[in-house]
Amino acid sequence: MSSSAPLRSLCLDNINPRVKAAKYAVRGELAVRSEIYRQKLARGEGGDLPFDTVISANIGNPQQLDQKPITFFRQVASLLENPTLLEHADLLVEKCGYKADVVARAKKLLKDVKSVGAYSQSQGAPGIRDSVAKFIENRDGFPADPASIYLSAGASSGVNTMLHVICSKPETGVLVPIPQYPLYTATLSVLGARCVPYYLDEAHAWTTDLSAIESALASARDAGTDVRALVIINPGNPTGASLPAEDIRKVIEFAAREKLVLIADEVYQTNVFQGSFVSFKKGLRELQAERPGEFDYVELVSLHSISKGMVGECGHRGGYFELVGFDPDVVAQIYKFVSISLCPPVVGQCLVECMVNPPKEGDESYALYRKEYDGIYEGLMKRAFALYEAFKEMEGVECQSPAVQGSMYLFPTIHVPAKAAEQAAKEGRTPDEFYCFRLLDATGVCVVPGSGFGQKDGSLHFRTTFLAPGTDWVGRITKFHKDFMDEFR
Amino acid sequence: MSSSAPLRSLCLDNINPRVKAAKYAVRGELAVRSEIYRQKLARGEGGDLPFDTVISANIGNPQQLDQKPITFFRQVASLLENPTLLEHADLLVEKCGYKADVVARAKKLLKDVKSVGAYSQSQGAPGIRDSVAKFIENRDGFPADPASIYLSAGASSGVNTMLHVICSKPETGVLVPIPQYPLYTATLSVLGARCVPYYLDEAHAWTTDLSAIESALASARDAGTDVRALVIINPGNPTGASLPAEDIRKVIEFAAREKLVLIADEVYQTNVFQGSFVSFKKGLRELQAERPGEFDYVELVSLHSISKGMVGECGHRGGYFELVGFDPDVVAQIYKFVSISLCPPVVGQCLVECMVNPPKEGDESYALYRKEYDGIYEGLMKRAFALYEAFKEMEGVECQSPAVQGSMYLFPTIHVPAKAAEQAAKEGRTPDEFYCFRLLDATGVCVVPGSGFGQKDGSLHFRTTFLAPGTDWVGRITKFHKDFMDEFR
Repeated sequence: MSSSAPLRSLCLDNINPRVKAAKYAVRGELAVRSEIYRQKLARGEGGDLPFDTVISANIGNPQQLDQKPITFFRQVASLLENPTLLEHADLLVEKCGYKADVVARAKKLLKDVKSVGAYSQSQGAPGIRDSVAKFIENRDGFPADPASIYLSAGASSGVNTMLHVICSKPETGVLVPIPQYPLYTATLSVLGARCVPYYLDEAHAWTTDLSAIESALASARDAGTDVRALVIINPGNPTGASLPAEDIRKVIEFAAREKLVLIADEVYQTNVFQGSFVSFKKGLRELQAERPGEFDYVELVSLHSISKGMVGECGHRGGYFELVGFDPDVVAQIYKFVSISLCPPVVGQCLVECMVNPPKEGDESYALYRKEYDGIYEGLMKRAFALYEAFKEMEGVECQSPAVQGSMYLFPTIHVPAKAAEQAAKEGRTPDEFYCFRLLDATGVCVVPGSGFGQKDGSLHFRTTFLAPGTDWVGRITKFHKDFMDEFR
Repeated sequence: MSSSAPLRSLCLDNINPRVKAAKYAVRGELAVRSEIYRQKLARGEGGDLPFDTVISANIGNPQQLDQKPITFFRQVASLLENPTLLEHADLLVEKCGYKADVVARAKKLLKDVKSVGAYSQSQGAPGIRDSVAKFIENRDGFPADPASIYLSAGASSGVNTMLHVICSKPETGVLVPIPQYPLYTATLSVLGARCVPYYLDEAHAWTTDLSAIESALASARDAGTDVRALVIINPGNPTGASLPAEDIRKVIEFAAREKLVLIADEVYQTNVFQGSFVSFKKGLRELQAERPGEFDYVELVSLHSISKGMVGECGHRGGYFELVGFDPDVVAQIYKFVSISLCPPVVGQCLVECMVNPPKEGDESYALYRKEYDGIYEGLMKRAFALYEAFKEMEGVECQSPAVQGSMYLFPTIHVPAKAAEQAAKEGRTPDEFYCFRLLDATGVCVVPGSGFGQKDGSLHFRTTFLAPGTDWVGRITKFHKDFMDEFR
């Protein structure tokens, strides 16, 4: 191959530079290496590894980590997949633990979608959107319109849709919290638009500090950025921070003043360990009721998902977003955009319905549902605190208490010795990446370096889920950390 | 609102112009209107409509049109959704028609994915990719590498991935057949890249004429377009045309000569009514075997789906693509891009496995599988011919015989009287759009105008699926057409 002519159409130098620039560390090199270890162990070839299991604490993937699905949801789904089982409903009830409300729900959903193998409307099946609207109404105390609900393949797909519509030119900017879930920066990268970072306040439990947003907006505008939207992740990912009602009001007032689309990523709305979740939709409707006319044109998109919470059905790729206050011409373009992908997975849509309309008190499946739901909630909380206690004991590690946090993650700060930073630089890695690779290689525990989410210069973190069962893996981290500090002290 | 300041962040004039420019007629205004009619009828308010059912012949959505899912697939899926049913396997076998191979398959798939509620690897579960590779090997007679298989949310998502990676700048061009499935033009629009159209040869059963591709490429290059890829839809959508092996070889030779990525959209590979399907992968491997060294760097992506064929599981959003001959650095970028969406729906992945590895002769579920599969195939063929016979009788309509065509569609040419074209212009519509709206309003039958797929200037077509059961609706078209011709003659 001495010729200088390219061999192929595509090479690293001529493909889409925006795709190349996108970073998505949650499933990056560390995750790939952890999969190699896992497969090695599965083949019984892990004799040279200093651990016998891989702990994937890098992604919020509850059912990969032994969280059991909620029985009601899956019983319903089994009937949707094989409706001929409905002919044997008595048998399922008598012998297999199905209840009459499972059968009734499956029948209702089959009426809504006809078959889970058929495309639905691009926006999602109307009957399911009705249930979502009722859920929002019950949650917030204000009506919701099924016509403004868009079912989606997880919340990621909704974010992708909204950013596609919003980003009109290279100067378009979107305010994104740092640290953030990297979907936002990755998608803005692919769209060739600007991420306008605003820093969350670690010293105050990662709270959203309005003045930080204001100054980020001002600097971006000075730099010629046409800022159009503001992303809030509440409860936060990776930080877990939960916004109080008063902060939500301030953010909405700010968005109204500055004419910014509010993108409220609320997928962790049930992962709150203290106090209760307040939605942006509720905050907006309250402000609208209190000060008529002033907030009529606030554009809010609020996203939810079946992947998180106690549901944890990530593999089904279900979610929804609600549009509030958008120009109908813009809504028509959003509709067209989602129609190009035809429709979200229909079983995922049906699980959205189960999530927003679970068994109620008095329903036959209620007792088991309640028990399973509460069991998962308590298990998460217990593991969160166990991990937090372990972090507290570690030298050079600081971590917010899960008591004021939520979601599925802890995001501790780590201080590593100067020698570790030097060694990282030699290996061409950031110190937090270096730390996480060493952790994986030594213990099989896979976490994500803070640089994958963004962090203030000079600070180092990692994100770990608290989904993995047991506490053995926490012990592995503790031991590794001590050895690491000793090695580089 | 007398102020000239904008009320909101977003309006039609400042959102992404690329999204605005995208066209996707398959689910456009006609489809929306047909849904309104359908809901009206469902509410019992259709008294003023001249029809009592809506026939959605606009999209290939078999199960919405009463095609029954294949029992084996759905029995397996029901067990995946509720694995506790495996504890009652004997009962399901004894009473509910489940066979031992259904149970075995569900167990195998659960081993592959752990839970259908868990995220899989972004590329798809390894065990399922192994099955896909075996299927390709059996189909083509050449090995396939599971590491080169990417499971996807239907083929659409695979096309979206590949075009994202390929389109690097506004001058990037992709050769697309006209007429085409509008996913291609819509996605190129969103990416701000150029569609380089080449016309299929209607006079010769919509065949792919290499000289048309050559001249389209030459003109595009003259206009400064950096053409990087060539899309082939085989069998064709909307045309149904199937490429013979010899034409496939010529196209591959051309792609090798011109260094173009070959995007082979082969989702209708089992919808062939005469002769047999030949894959581009097979064509490439044969050429490589015959003339060693000459085709080593041909880049081929071949796409397949569970949405079409006799499977028809569109709502499950499953599919795969195979990458052949790509630079490993480019493959790494493709992997990263798909990882941003986390993973394809896991039940959809499992149905891909069932599609590529169905019950075999000797398996307990084979007899029923064979019967169902053949029944769907024969039903499609029968309806295709019934529709074709009806079109043949209509004044001013010409249509290719399904005997030399495949896929799920007919794409007849229509000649409308000059007065109809004038009336269309008055209403701001193309004559084919006008015709299709009149057809929907008069009969409830929804088809897609040829302009939605592209057609030669001055020619008019529409695309109809032949999925709807019965023949009543064909009669409705015949009667409408006669009335329409009489009205505007």
